[in-house]
Amino acid sequence: MRAEIIAVGTEILLGQINNTNTTFLAEELAGLGIEVYYQSVVGDNPQRLEEALQLADQRSDLVVLCGGLGPTEDDLTKQVTAKHLGQELVTDKRGYQNLLAFFKKRDRPMTENNRLQALVFKDGESLQNSTGLAIGIFYQSPAGISYLLLPGPPNELKPMFFNEAIPLLQRHFHQDEYLISRVLRFYGIGESELVTKLTDLINGQTNPTLASYAKPNEVTLRLTVSTIDKSQGEQKLDQLEKEILTRVGDYFYGYGENNSLAQVVVDLLKKNQQTVSAAESLTAGSFQATLGSISGVSEVYPGGFVTYSKKTKEQFLELDSEMLKKYGTVSKECAEEMALQTKKLAHSDFALSFTGVAGPDSLEGQSAGTVWIGLASKEGVQSYLYHFAHDRDYVRNSAVMAGLNLLRKKLTK
Amino acid sequence: MRAEIIAVGTEILLGQINNTNTTFLAEELAGLGIEVYYQSVVGDNPQRLEEALQLADQRSDLVVLCGGLGPTEDDLTKQVTAKHLGQELVTDKRGYQNLLAFFKKRDRPMTENNRLQALVFKDGESLQNSTGLAIGIFYQSPAGISYLLLPGPPNELKPMFFNEAIPLLQRHFHQDEYLISRVLRFYGIGESELVTKLTDLINGQTNPTLASYAKPNEVTLRLTVSTIDKSQGEQKLDQLEKEILTRVGDYFYGYGENNSLAQVVVDLLKKNQQTVSAAESLTAGSFQATLGSISGVSEVYPGGFVTYSKKTKEQFLELDSEMLKKYGTVSKECAEEMALQTKKLAHSDFALSFTGVAGPDSLEGQSAGTVWIGLASKEGVQSYLYHFAHDRDYVRNSAVMAGLNLLRKKLTK
Repeated sequence: MRAEIIAVGTEILLGQINNTNTTFLAEELAGLGIEVYYQSVVGDNPQRLEEALQLADQRSDLVVLCGGLGPTEDDLTKQVTAKHLGQELVTDKRGYQNLLAFFKKRDRPMTENNRLQALVFKDGESLQNSTGLAIGIFYQSPAGISYLLLPGPPNELKPMFFNEAIPLLQRHFHQDEYLISRVLRFYGIGESELVTKLTDLINGQTNPTLASYAKPNEVTLRLTVSTIDKSQGEQKLDQLEKEILTRVGDYFYGYGENNSLAQVVVDLLKKNQQTVSAAESLTAGSFQATLGSISGVSEVYPGGFVTYSKKTKEQFLELDSEMLKKYGTVSKECAEEMALQTKKLAHSDFALSFTGVAGPDSLEGQSAGTVWIGLASKEGVQSYLYHFAHDRDYVRNSAVMAGLNLLRKKLTK
Repeated sequence: MRAEIIAVGTEILLGQINNTNTTFLAEELAGLGIEVYYQSVVGDNPQRLEEALQLADQRSDLVVLCGGLGPTEDDLTKQVTAKHLGQELVTDKRGYQNLLAFFKKRDRPMTENNRLQALVFKDGESLQNSTGLAIGIFYQSPAGISYLLLPGPPNELKPMFFNEAIPLLQRHFHQDEYLISRVLRFYGIGESELVTKLTDLINGQTNPTLASYAKPNEVTLRLTVSTIDKSQGEQKLDQLEKEILTRVGDYFYGYGENNSLAQVVVDLLKKNQQTVSAAESLTAGSFQATLGSISGVSEVYPGGFVTYSKKTKEQFLELDSEMLKKYGTVSKECAEEMALQTKKLAHSDFALSFTGVAGPDSLEGQSAGTVWIGLASKEGVQSYLYHFAHDRDYVRNSAVMAGLNLLRKKLTK
């Protein structure tokens, strides 16, 4: 089966935004065993989109279009594709109810053009949008070519793909042999080093296959087996996983595409019925915001401090100003006192502290990327020095991930 | 003139890497007044690359290929394109000297396949590579179509584009007219409503053009004029901007692609020499982390609190437990007290508070998305009730943006 992806949008064509939707879709389709042979981009132009559809009809079995489902004049993917396929556009009832509810809740008038977002093909299937308003469409033509239309905003496209498109694609493109995937997540090892340690496994076998993906501050491995029997497939994955973990198990922290270090830490704390607090300087709340993104975190996280200035370190955490003067705020001593005081003030089982130089400028004679992290527990306090690279955001993200990993290690010891 | 970009590489087709080269090239070409009409991606496959070249010959005047110039078996862009055009491959002397020098310096043997990187078209022009080994190629066919071949690694492609390709393109495609763009940013109005108010401007004119882009919780408008005279072009943009702001100026907050509400707020506080603090419940530090992402924020932001639980609201902010019991934590009263206490404790000019229901579950009988934001200043405190939609992350992000906008309005009053 040959698939192709057509991203629609002048902003992509002009290089104003990265075409991350195509990357996402290509990776996910590969995971479903659907091979992408072509990717293309066309602007918000009916004639060129029609040309792209004609070309796709000649060479592909599945055509995935993303973008151009919104309410404005230049959103024309649905209209052009409907015309191309001779499909009538009708209103999706559930989508229309959502539209009405959305504007009612905000007490804003629903302009007429919004109705376009609930239009679908008469003979197609609708894909609901849990994070936005534009409804997706799946349609199989009499010629046997399938079309999948998805919205452009990534925060709408991704949930729709996971929740609606995957089950639908699996149903329509049922294969005797199917793919089972398992994702292993690693922290603390670079992709090139990980891949070097697994070279023979990556090159030497075709079933299961093994692919690595570098993400900011972590690496994931996707193991994929093609099988006609679930338990046989799982067994093969177990074997491969065992071999991988023998080599790089020290860096492994969890399973799953939608997992994260924060999720693992929150799960461990829940299991232990323990709590964590934090005092953040350079990370300015990022660590706590990352915890806060996990649903149900309130069980294990009461709150904490952002002590960005020296003064708030003294005021909120009652740190000794003489100590701060002597050692500076970017110091082992400051990190450890921050953690100990936070644990005390928040009455938590653990407390993390973050102090350092986000950059771009150096601070107190210490270079950008220098970070101290403290971890207080009932056994006392420990602190750790890091030198992170790259820009301000990367330094802050690296510090948050390092803090999460310190706590994870403490909780699994 | 119609240009198209073909990125070559199976790793892009499978979604293993983002196609940032195409984004870069599209934006740079637009800046040179060269309009990109098509973008496509093909894998490392000679037949499909040949097909892509045939298609490009039919529809484009300039074909930019990137990737596949390296030394390995799957690098075949140069070979396939040479064959397609009937061009002989010859060794570029300067490129070959570079190759020899590179391996000599590293005291490593030069394997035979490296020679491929110095091959160029007999009747083309060579583009030297200041950061790598693969030489680029520019060629004009007897049919009048131009081909530009560039290497795949971004750290080679970008310098080659700036140093070698731009002068060459300007020489070959001298244009009197070039493009000037201006980006206007809006908060508090949906894309559909904004576009409805500007329909006639969007549809009624071709120079300048006007395009809207929806981002999470904001909308940007890009005004682009094609001109032979800079000040004349700027004047046209001024006129259009004035007309736009007459209609939707209430929602306008700033200029520029890389601007943000947080940047605008930090700039205003710096200008006024004032400071802001915050106490966050449902946002769990996101507001402060957003401020923290702005370089130089330490001048205007000393720190703040994350009071996720009821207990930390009492402990850190010394809120009255009777008040909390009476009104609940998701209340006007709680939001106002949080803001007032934070302003006092942090000795700041302004303090924001965030309390509400991130979801997915409801809290204290209030539905997910219900958020109170308090804003304390020397004039007292005000509070605002919101009902945000969608998922947990969206609710939190919406609250952060609403808080930034409240402060911006206060600062510009």
